[in-house]
Amino acid sequence: MVREAMRDFSDDHRWLSINTATVKAQGDLLTIIEACKRAGIRGLSPWRDQVAAVGIDSVAREIKAGGFELSGYCRGGFFTSDAALQPEVMDDNRRAVDEAATLGAPCLVLVVGALPQFSRAGSAPSKDIAAARAMVEDNIGRLLEYADAAGVPLAIEPLHPMYAADRSCINTTRHALDICDALDPKRSGSIGIALDVYHTWWDPELEAQIARAGKSRLLAFHVCDWLVPTTDLLNDRGMMGDGVIDIPKVRGWVEAQGFNGYVEVEIFSNAWWQRPLDEVLATCIERHRNSV
Amino acid sequence: MVREAMRDFSDDHRWLSINTATVKAQGDLLTIIEACKRAGIRGLSPWRDQVAAVGIDSVAREIKAGGFELSGYCRGGFFTSDAALQPEVMDDNRRAVDEAATLGAPCLVLVVGALPQFSRAGSAPSKDIAAARAMVEDNIGRLLEYADAAGVPLAIEPLHPMYAADRSCINTTRHALDICDALDPKRSGSIGIALDVYHTWWDPELEAQIARAGKSRLLAFHVCDWLVPTTDLLNDRGMMGDGVIDIPKVRGWVEAQGFNGYVEVEIFSNAWWQRPLDEVLATCIERHRNSV
Repeated sequence: MVREAMRDFSDDHRWLSINTATVKAQGDLLTIIEACKRAGIRGLSPWRDQVAAVGIDSVAREIKAGGFELSGYCRGGFFTSDAALQPEVMDDNRRAVDEAATLGAPCLVLVVGALPQFSRAGSAPSKDIAAARAMVEDNIGRLLEYADAAGVPLAIEPLHPMYAADRSCINTTRHALDICDALDPKRSGSIGIALDVYHTWWDPELEAQIARAGKSRLLAFHVCDWLVPTTDLLNDRGMMGDGVIDIPKVRGWVEAQGFNGYVEVEIFSNAWWQRPLDEVLATCIERHRNSV
Repeated sequence: MVREAMRDFSDDHRWLSINTATVKAQGDLLTIIEACKRAGIRGLSPWRDQVAAVGIDSVAREIKAGGFELSGYCRGGFFTSDAALQPEVMDDNRRAVDEAATLGAPCLVLVVGALPQFSRAGSAPSKDIAAARAMVEDNIGRLLEYADAAGVPLAIEPLHPMYAADRSCINTTRHALDICDALDPKRSGSIGIALDVYHTWWDPELEAQIARAGKSRLLAFHVCDWLVPTTDLLNDRGMMGDGVIDIPKVRGWVEAQGFNGYVEVEIFSNAWWQRPLDEVLATCIERHRNSV
């Protein structure tokens, strides 16, 4: 069933989720959770390092006590490495699955890694992106069995092609969905994608690939904005409304497939990391209402 | 007919061409041409602003006197704008065609533009990349008639998706070829692509799209390298061999289609623009032999 109308967010942030990297510089995860509670934010997507820094048990407790829901857990992946490091890679990813299960996350987001020397320290330099892609697909398949048993869906996040060397060799929605279809042809719900407008807005196939994904593969929807000029490849992402992405159009495509979950704000920004925590959250709420 | 073996460049730079933006900071175009002559370089691809600065007649004379061939002319495009500016856009592009014809260039490279406010000053802000793409395709079609009459093939250069907002809304080889096929289904030779490894190396469809292009659509082949980290979205491109692109593999795909023209070195780099002209050219020659 395809929805015809988009949700109206103009006076409601019920479906806003904060990816906690957005305010990682302003405080530890418990501080961030407390600020989200003050702001009436219901959704969270925490990062592993932020969880580890304060202890997963206290995070689980605060999430429950605050009545929060998670929109994802960040992140598994970086699957490429020298052969000798592969056991460590898979252990690391299984721990990420376990943590996601403990926190009740609806999916584990995968940033899959790219050339091995940038994915796992100590790996030999390589220029073979096709080999990296093959290793990634193999390892997602391997992790899928474990994650499925743990009840944690895997969400492949296609990253912008400017990260193809060092962060993710899955750079289009089409490629991510090809892997989903290969590993889970029956659409069991165990694997899908995390669609981030920052990484995908440029793609002429985006609307068609979102339709191909359908509700069953759309496990997470991330927003921020593309700034012109962009001064840093990683940490100059924009607040929604400050850039060139037609975010409501993309949300319309996603919701036309029946997606009715959280809209997760994930902004890596040297500029926003310097603003007060409450101000950043208030701005996210405002822009969620008028620019998403 | 498909070639089986790649050309051996290991002790020969007969097929090296220098895109003159690579050394634009080190001297005017006549100085650059003189230095290329000293280095035994046979191919050149000049830019319009460099030509204009010294006068097209003197450039044409020096090219002829030096026995140079051009591998392209840079550039036409930036087709998107407010309606009121469209006559100026097309005039500008027709002049580029005329200059290419005067210089005997084998193609006019098109960097097509993207959102109109970044393409032509004074255009109203827009987030509609689909509209930009439609305007680009219309205008290439319009220019094609003029260029065809002038005997100048048009080479659409797909640019890396990180330029989708401000420089080119054609960001994949597939998309560029779709436009070629729509405008010239009979493969007359009047339109094709300029394939630059910097813009396309990440694309999982690259090999397949090069095969689809075939010799008749492969009008230019550009090389440089992708650096990790990349510190500037425009001007931190690498010398061949200093980055992560498997350039020989891509050249192999191109030459397997029968491409036997110049390999054009085009490097926008704040670092290389600070080195002496002769040193940069010598390095291009060395890397052309061992990393291309």
